[in-house]
Amino acid sequence: MQALAVFPSQKRFGLLDIPEPQLSGATQVLLRLCEVGLCGTDREIASFEYGDPPSGADHLILGHESLAEVVELGREVRSLKRGDLVVAMVRRPCPHAECRACRAGRPDFCVTGDYTERGIKGADGFLTDYVVEDEKYLVRVPRALADVAVLVEPLSVVTKAADQAHAIFDRLSYDPGPQRGLVLGAGPIGLLGAMVLVANGFETLVYSRDSEESKPAELVRSLGAHYASSTIDPIEGLGTRWGQFDLIFEAVGFAPLMVGATQMLRANGVLALTGVPPKAATVELNAGRVLRDLVLRNQVVFGTVNAGRRDHLSAIQHLEQFMVLFPESVRTLITHRVPLDEVPQILTQKRGIKDVVEMTRAA
Amino acid sequence: MQALAVFPSQKRFGLLDIPEPQLSGATQVLLRLCEVGLCGTDREIASFEYGDPPSGADHLILGHESLAEVVELGREVRSLKRGDLVVAMVRRPCPHAECRACRAGRPDFCVTGDYTERGIKGADGFLTDYVVEDEKYLVRVPRALADVAVLVEPLSVVTKAADQAHAIFDRLSYDPGPQRGLVLGAGPIGLLGAMVLVANGFETLVYSRDSEESKPAELVRSLGAHYASSTIDPIEGLGTRWGQFDLIFEAVGFAPLMVGATQMLRANGVLALTGVPPKAATVELNAGRVLRDLVLRNQVVFGTVNAGRRDHLSAIQHLEQFMVLFPESVRTLITHRVPLDEVPQILTQKRGIKDVVEMTRAA
Repeated sequence: MQALAVFPSQKRFGLLDIPEPQLSGATQVLLRLCEVGLCGTDREIASFEYGDPPSGADHLILGHESLAEVVELGREVRSLKRGDLVVAMVRRPCPHAECRACRAGRPDFCVTGDYTERGIKGADGFLTDYVVEDEKYLVRVPRALADVAVLVEPLSVVTKAADQAHAIFDRLSYDPGPQRGLVLGAGPIGLLGAMVLVANGFETLVYSRDSEESKPAELVRSLGAHYASSTIDPIEGLGTRWGQFDLIFEAVGFAPLMVGATQMLRANGVLALTGVPPKAATVELNAGRVLRDLVLRNQVVFGTVNAGRRDHLSAIQHLEQFMVLFPESVRTLITHRVPLDEVPQILTQKRGIKDVVEMTRAA
Repeated sequence: MQALAVFPSQKRFGLLDIPEPQLSGATQVLLRLCEVGLCGTDREIASFEYGDPPSGADHLILGHESLAEVVELGREVRSLKRGDLVVAMVRRPCPHAECRACRAGRPDFCVTGDYTERGIKGADGFLTDYVVEDEKYLVRVPRALADVAVLVEPLSVVTKAADQAHAIFDRLSYDPGPQRGLVLGAGPIGLLGAMVLVANGFETLVYSRDSEESKPAELVRSLGAHYASSTIDPIEGLGTRWGQFDLIFEAVGFAPLMVGATQMLRANGVLALTGVPPKAATVELNAGRVLRDLVLRNQVVFGTVNAGRRDHLSAIQHLEQFMVLFPESVRTLITHRVPLDEVPQILTQKRGIKDVVEMTRAA
């Protein structure tokens, strides 16, 4: 069968033939891939900026946003049956006894940094026909979500952030009333963030560099949210025009915007950061203003990465909500479905909002 | 009776005679002040940098860290009796209907900024013999705590921070195991922060500019915590010598230290900011490193100010804990007790760690 792999030391990537995998453990599951979503991380790996092959290997099979069908079960697998649709979690525990996060099944909070991630760091991904996976890393998805369930993995990153923000708002011990949300960035993560905010009752504004006539802007408006383009509204004037926000969800990774976002927070507001800026980004910070506001206005800034099982379950619940509230908007997010042999081209040139590789149609 | 007041427009402060207050409402309580603690805010008000007299008045009676005895009760007061020891909460609700925080009795989360604060902003304080106060702003203190209960108000600021940090740690959904705490600053708030961390089982380091032989350093060691002086350990090397921390409690208000503290956070760590830096503090920030760590290591930074009723109740519980664990350390925190007529002098020249004004002895 074919797989799409990156050979970092040779600075090349492409299709290669690999043998079909076999079950070798009682809790394993053989999966046939249906779809694999592509994201910015895949493009970074394909340009050799990021990504590690499995230990001892010269290549890494790409793909971490999976949707697959169960085709064969190890004899001890109890939670799944043949024909089930599943999404595989991406991050796997580090081996260290002292990492209580990984030992507790929350490698997204790994404290050692020695976790692996399928398709990203030290473990092969899902851009192939069949994979073997342990039952415990799989999350079952209702078949009713089949056409959009490839979004569960990126959405789990957003629901992890949203559920943390919710827990932080709970510290207020009173009902804060109608809340306003700002999303920075209109890529798939930003747009999924906007959907979560709208579904949770926030009056929502999405701010991005895409024009007011762009596809993402249209999608935002289809949710009943507002859209502002940085080509028209410079960030400095955003507060004057749009006011301040209770929750800001950042999904850009541009350091000045991440720092500047604090000035758009209301009292008791929460800024959730999910973008990863370059290491060398330096910002001249009016620290006095930012820090005084944080303290005197009880504000919170937090970063969040990856997701655990409960965030995937939350993602599935949210996706079900979305398919009731704005099903066409969710479908519109997946702009292209391409076969595996077009992936090399699509990794170097992004086509739409979310490009998805069609491996086999869900039965 | 005498009161200590600041006349901001005349740039002077001193004692003045005022009439004894009388009960004028059914839910009011007449209090005789026992002790009033002094803090940095009082010194800022006494140097005319801060503080607002009540509307229409030319002076502000100082003092917000109170301990008082109930001497007379309005006819509808149910929760208190004559002879009870009480601490008055400092911040009072703003008048705006739209401020749900104030309407819910949490003016410490006021969203309009139009709250008042007794002894600080728009309302007279407690540096006098008798005051009238509404029952709902009073917190009863067990008589067993009489000799240290003047610390309840500053401690409530710390317990608000600690209880929020605790709620944020709860997002981890696993037991993080033994935790390490760093306190920045060894003033009363920092030292109370160290006590809270030690009482909650944190291995604790206090970092301050005071020497290793200073009284605060001794007090820190008496808790079983570690002490490091910035005169010996520059902040840049602190991580190398002392490692990283799960919870950092900042109580300095020095912007570069507040920003630099992020590099001492462990994965999943929480930085609680309580210091208020000058407005114009500018910091050259390696935003790339700070923001990447926040995101990739699930870190949280939050600011917190003032306290609500439940934080005062938490402060009383903590103080009870402290009086079992390290009673002498708590008593040592109150370095001086002085009469009212020495306050003008002590406001311009701080004597020890916590200077307390003795109004009348608790009966």
